[in-house]
Amino acid sequence: MKKSSNISKNVIRRLPRYLRKLDELSRAGVERISSGELGSQMGLTPSQIRQDFSCFGEFGQQGYGYRVAALRGQIARILGMDRSYGVILIGAGRIGQSLIENFDFSHYGFRLLGAFEIRKELVGTEIAGVTIADAETQRDFIRENNVDIAILSINKDHAQQVADELIDSGVKSIWNFTDAEIDPGDSGCVIESIHFSDSLLALSYYLTEKD
Amino acid sequence: MKKSSNISKNVIRRLPRYLRKLDELSRAGVERISSGELGSQMGLTPSQIRQDFSCFGEFGQQGYGYRVAALRGQIARILGMDRSYGVILIGAGRIGQSLIENFDFSHYGFRLLGAFEIRKELVGTEIAGVTIADAETQRDFIRENNVDIAILSINKDHAQQVADELIDSGVKSIWNFTDAEIDPGDSGCVIESIHFSDSLLALSYYLTEKD
Repeated sequence: MKKSSNISKNVIRRLPRYLRKLDELSRAGVERISSGELGSQMGLTPSQIRQDFSCFGEFGQQGYGYRVAALRGQIARILGMDRSYGVILIGAGRIGQSLIENFDFSHYGFRLLGAFEIRKELVGTEIAGVTIADAETQRDFIRENNVDIAILSINKDHAQQVADELIDSGVKSIWNFTDAEIDPGDSGCVIESIHFSDSLLALSYYLTEKD
Repeated sequence: MKKSSNISKNVIRRLPRYLRKLDELSRAGVERISSGELGSQMGLTPSQIRQDFSCFGEFGQQGYGYRVAALRGQIARILGMDRSYGVILIGAGRIGQSLIENFDFSHYGFRLLGAFEIRKELVGTEIAGVTIADAETQRDFIRENNVDIAILSINKDHAQQVADELIDSGVKSIWNFTDAEIDPGDSGCVIESIHFSDSLLALSYYLTEKD
């Protein structure tokens, strides 16, 4: 397997899409698939698919195609899904609650360890089996537990300040829903942001282009 | 201005990021900026920035830099933000409610026309000035109003069926939060999906790579 740092950002961004497609094929009982068929289902060329997978070594066999379960397993490992990363949620508002209730952390190999909220009226309430804890306890929780990922779903105005505190407490990465740009400074903390506006504006671009 | 269909997908995906950065600069009172400074703030090279903007014509002046307001206006137009697209929300659960309350539709040039929900206990409730309407009325609403974009934030299991109904009613594009893959068939409907798992798995990849 080649060194992963040689892999282009575009390939990395496609890997989760491959994973979702392979999950779908698996649920449908498909055991193997050709690069041509996989490409046609995903809007990619067979050669692009072969090229993407070749970054990580050889998964397929000429004339046979890819074994769905084996390929899924390889991609899952590359994505770190076998690491059992510990996740906490900072901010149990509507987005946070929706993630607790709907996001299948365990399916992707993550462990949701806890959820924290600053608003006292939400502390102690339970959502899908998770009891919301007081934000005042999150610092100690992070120091006592191995927290790989903190989900930041709080008010945008306090995003950087809370991120700084999380990084200082030892959080290794932040999944940022606040729409603020988080600066990790020289901490090395991995920041991944979901900017809803970026997605809607891309849609708006394509809609405008069609007119 | 070159034909927009020549613009690569990567450039299109960067445009909303430029817009956010220019908004930030504008709020901070910055009136002009060099490609070097813009690049350093965004983690891009000056030549990449010049190349991105050259796809749409010339915005900057040699030795002077870019005028923030003018550049912001040009990018906004390219993204269709001057079209005043009409948006409806299908599904007023936690994600839907969060969008109504927190997403600044008007800042990006969109008009939120209405919100629809199948659960009767939510119908008639008000969120940030928006009264939730009965999903049974959405078909007529779409036929009587010019709905450019439907936000789909319902249960994944019904996503394709509801999408088919929306497309049949005349919706031109769907902003999909359901984590289901929506097939527009041959309708030409623009589908843009936010898959939360894709983002978390990219984070997981980078975290794993660091180890």
